[in-house]
Amino acid sequence: MSLTQQVLKGNRLALSRLLTLVENNSPEGRAALAELFSHTGKAHLIGVTGSPGTGKSSLVNQLVLQYRKMDQKKVAVIAVDPSSPFTGGAVLGDRVRMRDLSGDDGVFIRSMASRGSVGGIAQTTAALAQVFDAAGYEIVIIETVGAGQSEVEIARLAHTTLVVEAPGLGDDIQAIKAGILEIADVLVINKADRPGVEHTERALRSSLELARPVSRVYHHGQAMTVKAHKPPPNTWIPPINKTIATDGSGIAKVIESIAKHMQYLRTSGEWNARERARLRSETEALVRDTLMTQFLEGLPEGAFESALERVFSHSLSPIEAAQFLAQTERPQTPRATKEQP
Amino acid sequence: MSLTQQVLKGNRLALSRLLTLVENNSPEGRAALAELFSHTGKAHLIGVTGSPGTGKSSLVNQLVLQYRKMDQKKVAVIAVDPSSPFTGGAVLGDRVRMRDLSGDDGVFIRSMASRGSVGGIAQTTAALAQVFDAAGYEIVIIETVGAGQSEVEIARLAHTTLVVEAPGLGDDIQAIKAGILEIADVLVINKADRPGVEHTERALRSSLELARPVSRVYHHGQAMTVKAHKPPPNTWIPPINKTIATDGSGIAKVIESIAKHMQYLRTSGEWNARERARLRSETEALVRDTLMTQFLEGLPEGAFESALERVFSHSLSPIEAAQFLAQTERPQTPRATKEQP
Repeated sequence: MSLTQQVLKGNRLALSRLLTLVENNSPEGRAALAELFSHTGKAHLIGVTGSPGTGKSSLVNQLVLQYRKMDQKKVAVIAVDPSSPFTGGAVLGDRVRMRDLSGDDGVFIRSMASRGSVGGIAQTTAALAQVFDAAGYEIVIIETVGAGQSEVEIARLAHTTLVVEAPGLGDDIQAIKAGILEIADVLVINKADRPGVEHTERALRSSLELARPVSRVYHHGQAMTVKAHKPPPNTWIPPINKTIATDGSGIAKVIESIAKHMQYLRTSGEWNARERARLRSETEALVRDTLMTQFLEGLPEGAFESALERVFSHSLSPIEAAQFLAQTERPQTPRATKEQP
Repeated sequence: MSLTQQVLKGNRLALSRLLTLVENNSPEGRAALAELFSHTGKAHLIGVTGSPGTGKSSLVNQLVLQYRKMDQKKVAVIAVDPSSPFTGGAVLGDRVRMRDLSGDDGVFIRSMASRGSVGGIAQTTAALAQVFDAAGYEIVIIETVGAGQSEVEIARLAHTTLVVEAPGLGDDIQAIKAGILEIADVLVINKADRPGVEHTERALRSSLELARPVSRVYHHGQAMTVKAHKPPPNTWIPPINKTIATDGSGIAKVIESIAKHMQYLRTSGEWNARERARLRSETEALVRDTLMTQFLEGLPEGAFESALERVFSHSLSPIEAAQFLAQTERPQTPRATKEQP
């Protein structure tokens, strides 16, 4: 039985091996992805992001436990840690998580030490999520650390994105959230037993107000921006949930918010729109990779290096070098062939 | 006089316009970059990164003032803010900075609202740095926010990378630094008048110890990792500088550390190595872009969309679609032409 067949049958060891092949972007991994693709498109991908110190990992832990208890759904967690590109810090995290969840066959946790560029991370995360999806995991949680561009890239993968906050992390950190708020489908204030929780909630509400869709009206020919009194119909307003992940308080409410968001995605047509956007950017990235590989294979030996030497000596600009190289591989036009006897 | 000529003559308005053309990746911008390239390679690119709350922007402000006062060097600042991909938060920052530095013709500050992917940000930052370099700015400071992958990408551009810390930001945040430490050439503990500064310094020193090169020895046939007693000769050990950016304390020492690092880069051959690595990855990225553009132009109308439709319906995987599409544009082989009459 092939590895993909074993994965489809629920073999955890095979799944683990396949995830490694896919993470390493090996030829077998790519072939398996192609084979599994027709089995995908069923999982609910949930992104969980927030600054360090918000207790995000404990929250993910609780979400998994709750999904297992309530719905008996199969749950996978992909823990991405883009803040630590060099150290393989993922291993310890795994062990800590495993305590609560070990022995449960319906749960699979995978840590990804983020190597390479953010584009690469998002691409690998998407591929791992597809494997879990094909393997029958109905909930795939993608956990990211930090407050950077990577969260945004990964949020584009997820159907539902949770942004986790906590009281008392300082105003600097709150300020940073202005951008991250716009990717939030569900907001969670964790550590809600801490002082300052009302302040955090107020700050979030006013940030949400600011982010609310505005309309543009014209007054005496001048454009004015007017805040909508009511949000337009069929708009999702991110709910704010309060939790204490260490004792599980509020987790059920978060699960409810996620379910409601899923419902909204389905009825509004957003689900399809997000799926299409996701598959489009995945395909585009793969086309780019394929073109570059073909190009490098077709290039005469040493051509790339000798163009680079001219760049190093500042006699050719990188742009000119790129155009020159790209032309090197241009298809032979019929005219060129005609000139030959 | 062309825009690039005006920029080379020191016209600030022309510089500002050119930066916008380059940031928007317009055809004029690309042409100007190619034209200016032979004037580049002189500036010292300094990356400054660190978490929010470390007072990084004040530090950059002080560095600029000091460079102007001490050496009369022309200084440019590129402020990249990847944490806020959607909001144009850069404008306010500009105004705050401008107070101290306005009226000084030897200083140019440019904020970049980070749009698109991190790869894109690094590429645009590199392009802006080249414009400043050609325009005669001897120091180009690239300031980034957050602790993510983007810092690493941008650090690859810089000759010297400063990592800024501050006491009392919590252990979570310290932990995150494990990865960022490895890109640091100079460490700065800002807000050094705050309690906990000794703790922060100790933590940094021990992290640096951990990051020190190790050798692998064999004992009874088993590999053992042994910490080097002394760092190998010609190794740069990041100095730790303490500053209070609000009153300028310690800034002169930081400038000294940066100068020493520059000296080290020159004598060790690292300067050339970094320049080559930078230009190589820039050229590669441009080749990728050029190939994709050529490919899309050569593709029959609607071919991309119809392949995507098959992906959306899950009858073709993204990988298969990419391979199929990339083959569509393959050069006509001589054999194919021969079969025609």
